[in-house]
Amino acid sequence: SAAAPVTTGQVALGVIPGDGIGPEVTAEALKVLEVAAPADLKFAQTSYDLGAERYLRTGEVLPDSVLEEIRNQDALLLGAVGGKPNDPNLPPGILERGLLLKLRFELDHYVNLRPSRIYPGSVSPLSDEVLAKGEVDFVVVREGTEGPYTGNGGALRVGTPAEVATEVSVNTAYGVERVVRDAFERARRRPRKKLTLVHKTNVLVHAGQVWWRLFQQVAEEYPDVTTDYSHIDAVMIYLTTDPQRFDVIVTDNLFGDIVTDLAAAISGGIGLAASGNVNPDRTAPSMFEPVHGSAPDIAGQLIADPTAAILSGALLLDHLGHPEAAARIEAAVLADLEAREPGQQRRTPEVGDAIAARVLG
Amino acid sequence: SAAAPVTTGQVALGVIPGDGIGPEVTAEALKVLEVAAPADLKFAQTSYDLGAERYLRTGEVLPDSVLEEIRNQDALLLGAVGGKPNDPNLPPGILERGLLLKLRFELDHYVNLRPSRIYPGSVSPLSDEVLAKGEVDFVVVREGTEGPYTGNGGALRVGTPAEVATEVSVNTAYGVERVVRDAFERARRRPRKKLTLVHKTNVLVHAGQVWWRLFQQVAEEYPDVTTDYSHIDAVMIYLTTDPQRFDVIVTDNLFGDIVTDLAAAISGGIGLAASGNVNPDRTAPSMFEPVHGSAPDIAGQLIADPTAAILSGALLLDHLGHPEAAARIEAAVLADLEAREPGQQRRTPEVGDAIAARVLG
Ligand SMILES: CC(C)[C@H](C(=O)O)[C@@H](O)C(=O)O
Ligand SMILES: CC(C)[C@H](C(=O)O)[C@@H](O)C(=O)O
Repeated sequence: SAAAPVTTGQVALGVIPGDGIGPEVTAEALKVLEVAAPADLKFAQTSYDLGAERYLRTGEVLPDSVLEEIRNQDALLLGAVGGKPNDPNLPPGILERGLLLKLRFELDHYVNLRPSRIYPGSVSPLSDEVLAKGEVDFVVVREGTEGPYTGNGGALRVGTPAEVATEVSVNTAYGVERVVRDAFERARRRPRKKLTLVHKTNVLVHAGQVWWRLFQQVAEEYPDVTTDYSHIDAVMIYLTTDPQRFDVIVTDNLFGDIVTDLAAAISGGIGLAASGNVNPDRTAPSMFEPVHGSAPDIAGQLIADPTAAILSGALLLDHLGHPEAAARIEAAVLADLEAREPGQQRRTPEVGDAIAARVLG
Repeated sequence: SAAAPVTTGQVALGVIPGDGIGPEVTAEALKVLEVAAPADLKFAQTSYDLGAERYLRTGEVLPDSVLEEIRNQDALLLGAVGGKPNDPNLPPGILERGLLLKLRFELDHYVNLRPSRIYPGSVSPLSDEVLAKGEVDFVVVREGTEGPYTGNGGALRVGTPAEVATEVSVNTAYGVERVVRDAFERARRRPRKKLTLVHKTNVLVHAGQVWWRLFQQVAEEYPDVTTDYSHIDAVMIYLTTDPQRFDVIVTDNLFGDIVTDLAAAISGGIGLAASGNVNPDRTAPSMFEPVHGSAPDIAGQLIADPTAAILSGALLLDHLGHPEAAARIEAAVLADLEAREPGQQRRTPEVGDAIAARVLG
């Protein structure tokens, strides 16, 4: 069951292929997951039909009964959800709030984990001069269950010239401490053992103060971890001119959303960015997904790059207690990326096959 | 007086040199301002001693009497304020909230204007491939008087494990419409006539909805302006991989803070980034300042680059109704940047002299 780390036996794996290229990349992630998993680990898959297509067909986003089934899985793999841009039948934000964020909140995914590496051969938009400074390899631990993402706030006199609309960012000591602690744990396990808090404490003083206090407080338990602090605006400069300075970043839900997209962009695009929505206490299944969207414009052509989905599978294995299996996938992806020729066009299943072969080989 | 555009005669110019390199770069900005201004425009300067030094010496941040004097100026020029990092005698955020933000709110600087250009010869951290796509030249119109910057919010059970802290983003139709309208005006005056709204409407629905509604509504009055929309996270990707797509961006106070630092970073660093805190209704003086800080580590050595301060002077002249004089400064800066040799070391006054000479030129 979800409560304990699964090390052997049967893993109940909920799969949400989603829309557009989602099913295509998910198939490759599953292919690689199967070959990378230890022999004594078997995945019992249940597929859930959720996303824009289901909504457009049935009007349902996430029925309660489906949520309850999902809650009983050991882990979840998601492809991507989202319809055609500006589809008038798809109210903006409905899938985001009704499905993606709903799962994060319901399953208490308080650690949104986003590793960033500039792999050899990946096309970074940064200059050779910046890249020459050294290896870029950091992970963002983004809070996933509070901050400005709670939906708190409201509006008065809507549609009139006297309208006032508020958004309330909610930050609890409970919520901040647990994610900060998780980030310190992750920093401790990495060679550089460095953790950067990112916030805007000079302006957002109420929230800033609870983040700052708990960061300092938890730091005392981790004397082996070096800490520092950056304002979110300064991070924009650091990530583009000196990304090597970061090891682990911990930040709130909204800053994390922004920082991780920049991190994905500088490390060669969201085509390679994997993420985990993690419930470290294992009171509900964690969910792993590529950062990219459903790319309806290229769906069905089998030309999407499944690498980010495959790397999400590695995060899933790591979370289930199989770091060696996760490392095998990462090494296979790395080798595949190194072998890619500029201009080479491979079909989605070919990339999956190539990486699966390297995992086996 | 501040209520009408000043075109000739005496301009009451309030100067806040500030701390660190602030006075050094302000001197050069004033030097260039004097030579660029039309012959019939004279600056009557009043200097205000404000910033970290004054606070440390007197305990005062912005006395009411000084604020009232400042309110009666026609325009303001600020160098930079800020003390040594982690000075225990300087409470974090005190100058930001007590001086910089206070001035923006008190003087109703609802348009925070930040132009971004990749000048030839400037050191962008972006790859040649991205830069080769074309010229980068856009301006961010950041809302300056509401959003998450109002200080609204609070905390309960501070310092305990049951603490909850909130930040409230306040968005009024009044405040959103006026800044959106200003951005449309600016877009209309530019060759490409394109305006992008940046927000996070899929998550911040209350605020998003008022921004979205007023953006669409005002757009109807500007059929000649092309509009589009980007989520703040997607902007991270666009600004690093395709900055050419932007012409004018309009966004809220916090997103604007983040976007403009990224914009400054990709266009060669905040050493070149100028900004205006503008009150377009001229009910109070507007303030112009470089985006960079006081850089206490290099203060007193006269090695700071005054270019951003000089360009802020150009924004000031433009605001006072002298676009030709502003253009002369910009052209002189451009020529100076083109003539810079890699590795060339000039002292702060030498850069100011060189640009002033080109203005006269
Ligand atoms: C789809 C959206 C709600 C989501 C977010 O803002 O968290 C996405 O941008 C992400 O980063 O996972
Ligand atoms: C100093 C700080 C309060 C300010 C802001 O956040 O607006 C600065 O970052 C800026 O962008 O002008």
